[in-house]
Amino acid sequence: VSEPARTPEPPYYAVIFSSVLSHDVEGYVQTSDRMMALASGQPGFLGVESAREEIGITVSYWRDLDAINGWRRHAEHVEAKRIGRTRWYKTYRLRICRVEREYGAP
Amino acid sequence: VSEPARTPEPPYYAVIFSSVLSHDVEGYVQTSDRMMALASGQPGFLGVESAREEIGITVSYWRDLDAINGWRRHAEHVEAKRIGRTRWYKTYRLRICRVEREYGAP
Repeated sequence: VSEPARTPEPPYYAVIFSSVLSHDVEGYVQTSDRMMALASGQPGFLGVESAREEIGITVSYWRDLDAINGWRRHAEHVEAKRIGRTRWYKTYRLRICRVEREYGAP
Repeated sequence: VSEPARTPEPPYYAVIFSSVLSHDVEGYVQTSDRMMALASGQPGFLGVESAREEIGITVSYWRDLDAINGWRRHAEHVEAKRIGRTRWYKTYRLRICRVEREYGAP
């Protein structure tokens, strides 16, 4: 991800996923790339931003809660989350937010 | 920032600041560190998460919109934002969000 997402006028939704990786990251990068590509093709997907240092932060933007729920229940995503919870993530938080205002430049 | 923020039960607010740096980053790290320390001491501050690769993402969490507005108007922060807009940031987006749900482990 090389630039901030180009999102429409609020309101829309953001999913903030914050995580710290464990030592067992076998398969993580491939699955992460695959999930990013898959999410981007979902109905109601608006954009994504991601960066990792000590902590990883991925923010995905969605038209509404239905779009988030659709992605949440996607079979391949469900399986990736199961592996993530049991192996890749030492800790994680997921926050579902309603974006109310947006500013920026240029 | 080495772990996800420990925030209270929703609802509360998140400010998602996404940016790409310009080539002129003189003074940026010092100011960024200072702003992080200063924000942490503001009334209603709940936590912060930050990572930068190609894009930088800083998510700060706040009790309510009053807390966000208080920080937004802090004199030293106002000056830092002015320099950021004119020098450090090639592009940025700031999104103000109401956090409605939160999950995580452990």
